[in-house]
Amino acid sequence: MYIESQHNDRVREWARLKTRRGRQKSGLFLVEGERLVTELLASHVHLEALLYNAALDEPPDAVWNHPKSVDRRFVLSPQAFALIADTETPQGLIAVAAIPKVDPHYPSRVLVLDAVQDPGNVGTLIRSAEAFGFDEIVFGTGTVDPYSPKVVRASMGGLFRVRVIAADPARYLAAWRRRHAQGTIVATAADAAERCDRAALGEQLALVIGNEARGVSDALRALADRTVAIPMAGKAESLNAAMAGTILLYEAYRQAANGAT
Amino acid sequence: MYIESQHNDRVREWARLKTRRGRQKSGLFLVEGERLVTELLASHVHLEALLYNAALDEPPDAVWNHPKSVDRRFVLSPQAFALIADTETPQGLIAVAAIPKVDPHYPSRVLVLDAVQDPGNVGTLIRSAEAFGFDEIVFGTGTVDPYSPKVVRASMGGLFRVRVIAADPARYLAAWRRRHAQGTIVATAADAAERCDRAALGEQLALVIGNEARGVSDALRALADRTVAIPMAGKAESLNAAMAGTILLYEAYRQAANGAT
Repeated sequence: MYIESQHNDRVREWARLKTRRGRQKSGLFLVEGERLVTELLASHVHLEALLYNAALDEPPDAVWNHPKSVDRRFVLSPQAFALIADTETPQGLIAVAAIPKVDPHYPSRVLVLDAVQDPGNVGTLIRSAEAFGFDEIVFGTGTVDPYSPKVVRASMGGLFRVRVIAADPARYLAAWRRRHAQGTIVATAADAAERCDRAALGEQLALVIGNEARGVSDALRALADRTVAIPMAGKAESLNAAMAGTILLYEAYRQAANGAT
Repeated sequence: MYIESQHNDRVREWARLKTRRGRQKSGLFLVEGERLVTELLASHVHLEALLYNAALDEPPDAVWNHPKSVDRRFVLSPQAFALIADTETPQGLIAVAAIPKVDPHYPSRVLVLDAVQDPGNVGTLIRSAEAFGFDEIVFGTGTVDPYSPKVVRASMGGLFRVRVIAADPARYLAAWRRRHAQGTIVATAADAAERCDRAALGEQLALVIGNEARGVSDALRALADRTVAIPMAGKAESLNAAMAGTILLYEAYRQAANGAT
């Protein structure tokens, strides 16, 4: 189907998905660019619509003629397309996808984000969580929306393969603990006395990463069994939240893979 | 001193520092924003000039009246200032600094960048190198210029505290090896059979990080004593060069701090 007008109802609805409110109302989000759309099509996330910019020559075949795309393809005028695109130089391809509705599984390894606010940091943490086998991520109150265009982009498709849970982190952790009586809740803090590599992080682990400026909240630190820091030669500020979190996810994986619990 | 014109000789020379060629000719580079300039003033790097945008109210006192700033302060008209600023919304403060001329020290721990091209990745690697005690970094042929505005920004001041060596990496490593007969040259590769956490990385370590797409070059892999990978549950592409490098620098520090060589 071809859509010319910027005032088309569908175009206006899709453009609203750039805002958190628009995503919450519709349960949809945007995925921009061939690479990310390819990752989306390979995942379990439901494709609602596939949009292509009429100003460009040919949509990429593997995406456009993917079985999931059938009856969901729209060619948009450049003006209509620009209204929906988030990046300044849009790549000509946008998918509209359904935000997965999933209940928490409380697996043995979970990453909890406590008011982490930078989309780039959160995207990186999603990638690292996937790399090191943490496939459930709790987006605690005050954490950036995982389905915002910047997080989607920074996660490089990792977002489509992990389980995203929006929850009050204290409540989630209480429920997690009931299922994992031997489990360890670990908070991270630059000023902690215990080194992450000398602490047994455990096979059953809830790892809590805090806000970029304030760290993990007092309430969650009080819930934690231990608080650990990354051993360092230089200044603690050398590592941002994404790098610190990546190291801790690696450390947990390394310990488990070594049977060092 | 107040400078009004965009055509002033100094203004034109400073604006040229945004290009690699301009920096190479003059031996100077630009540092933008109060936070980075503060880090610069606290370091050993020589301050050549301090520029302030006349459109703004008051320059920050701690920077403007710093002992190093005396006789080096220039207030520029907004147009002249905009010509030099790299960011779209300049913060009103730019330092012109001298690129440190340093010879290699060949310390026991060194990070070698082999054609790493993304400024954000390189900035992060500089921060991580500082965090984990690698205070000499070799910028091999094809690696992004460490003094480009984007790298300066992404390094968050770490650049001012590490030793930056531009060198042919094979030649550097040969000279390093002569000084560290027991040293280990470790290349990183996603397809390596050996896990970084099970390999003894050694107290004397040259860690080689490769290009984002091609990895470490064959020539440097041939020079390496071992090639290691990061153990992972997910896909190797989940980690970018900065994250992978950060984990390896941490792993080396962890092993040394545990006396596990």
